[in-house]
Amino acid sequence: MPTAQAQLMNGTDLARTLIDDTARRAAALTRDQHVVPTLATVLVGDDPASVTYVRMKQKRCERAGLRSEHVALPASTSTAQLVDALGVLSADPGIHGILLQHPVGDHIDERAAFDAIAPEKDVDGVTSQSFAAMALGGNGFASCTPGGIIRLLDHYAVDPAGMHAVVVGRSPILGRPVGMLLLGRNATVTYCHSHTRNLGSIVSAADLLVAAVGKPNFIVGEDIKPGAVVIDAGYNAGNIGDVEFSSARTRASLITPVPGGVGPMTIATLLAQTIDAAEPQTTAGE
Amino acid sequence: MPTAQAQLMNGTDLARTLIDDTARRAAALTRDQHVVPTLATVLVGDDPASVTYVRMKQKRCERAGLRSEHVALPASTSTAQLVDALGVLSADPGIHGILLQHPVGDHIDERAAFDAIAPEKDVDGVTSQSFAAMALGGNGFASCTPGGIIRLLDHYAVDPAGMHAVVVGRSPILGRPVGMLLLGRNATVTYCHSHTRNLGSIVSAADLLVAAVGKPNFIVGEDIKPGAVVIDAGYNAGNIGDVEFSSARTRASLITPVPGGVGPMTIATLLAQTIDAAEPQTTAGE
Repeated sequence: MPTAQAQLMNGTDLARTLIDDTARRAAALTRDQHVVPTLATVLVGDDPASVTYVRMKQKRCERAGLRSEHVALPASTSTAQLVDALGVLSADPGIHGILLQHPVGDHIDERAAFDAIAPEKDVDGVTSQSFAAMALGGNGFASCTPGGIIRLLDHYAVDPAGMHAVVVGRSPILGRPVGMLLLGRNATVTYCHSHTRNLGSIVSAADLLVAAVGKPNFIVGEDIKPGAVVIDAGYNAGNIGDVEFSSARTRASLITPVPGGVGPMTIATLLAQTIDAAEPQTTAGE
Repeated sequence: MPTAQAQLMNGTDLARTLIDDTARRAAALTRDQHVVPTLATVLVGDDPASVTYVRMKQKRCERAGLRSEHVALPASTSTAQLVDALGVLSADPGIHGILLQHPVGDHIDERAAFDAIAPEKDVDGVTSQSFAAMALGGNGFASCTPGGIIRLLDHYAVDPAGMHAVVVGRSPILGRPVGMLLLGRNATVTYCHSHTRNLGSIVSAADLLVAAVGKPNFIVGEDIKPGAVVIDAGYNAGNIGDVEFSSARTRASLITPVPGGVGPMTIATLLAQTIDAAEPQTTAGE
């Protein structure tokens, strides 16, 4: 008997569509307003993974016709120095978006650093103001992975209203904001994390599961509710997600692969939001 | 056979203790620093319920040795005018805390008005900055009802860690922030609301229930999990809470009465936070 297979939510294709649209908007801004939309990337120290991520983001900017301006700070940078640097970029009319690569190192107050970014340039959606906007429904940029997840759901016509959404993980840039965005879309939302008891039984009640815990194959396939929508935001060594893909796929109705699901949407959202930031900033100056 | 009865969580007594402590701190500030801690109350229009609430808060201030300064604005006040008025109070060194009585009327952008309050004077915990601090663990004032609920839980030695907390209601000043505070205390948190399906079965899984929906007897007693902690933040006409008290009491281990549970804690938290705001503001000027 053939096993049913969930439809794949193809983040690679949707991200390409979004980046193509972003490139068109960037070209129009550059041609019509003589402004090249510019993302400042800020890196503290030289952690190899962070260096790789920043380079990848810079390359994607270039390919989409955005300029990126890199600010490299030594690992010894203090919170006050980082806050100052972000304040300078926030005030610079030539910078439209600011990305602070994180984690920034244990000696830095990450929250203070994030909140030194002007909310209107916070295209990575990390400031308190952006979080509150996601949670309370105001104006502001989404954190890029949560924002990318919502774009994926919309593209595949998944309406979270009335669904029981279970978010596993509660980081300030992924689990917490994606839960708030889903609550804003009228899902019933449950947050699970390391202190959660009976995780399996809670997961098995999920119509919509967002796995954002960063542990390979942490969610076992047999806990997936038949017909559920499964969003795997995990990305672990060896291209392994947080969900046991092969078994989950036989139960879910829709599922994101890893890689090629959530990942590409994150960076596409970053680029799209940089143009969102550049458009009003440049036209406001006319 | 006698029916077991939950212990009552006595908010009236705990609020009195907190207000006594607040009064001592207010007296010390007045005596030692010649600064009378001052709460500005801002009211738009003359809705009778709002007028009553504001008067009650002013009276409680007086009794605790705090000064209150009232700003009455006409019902026709625009968002821009209200934002201006709140900006003036935010900049006034004689004002330590600001309370904008809400709802403010449909023609006003309430979020913009709240966010015009300086976060360090936001003793009612309504700004985006305060919300993010509650959600992400930074510095900031709690919304008064959620903050009062946490004080009650602490007083009765209820540790939310690992508990499944179900919050029914998702308002920006009650349901959403109390859920975030409980998540910060390591509870597994589920948000329910008007779109939630199978509310009864979700409520029956709650080790800790927060009812914040504003509908009399909305939560039926038979849905309460035996041994649960029940926090009833509802306050409806006729002194009726959101939870069927008499039947819930036979199942819960701890329960807040209405009135005399959550209600008194809200205003006590407002007063305590006004002193919290006044102390650093006055000492910073030395």
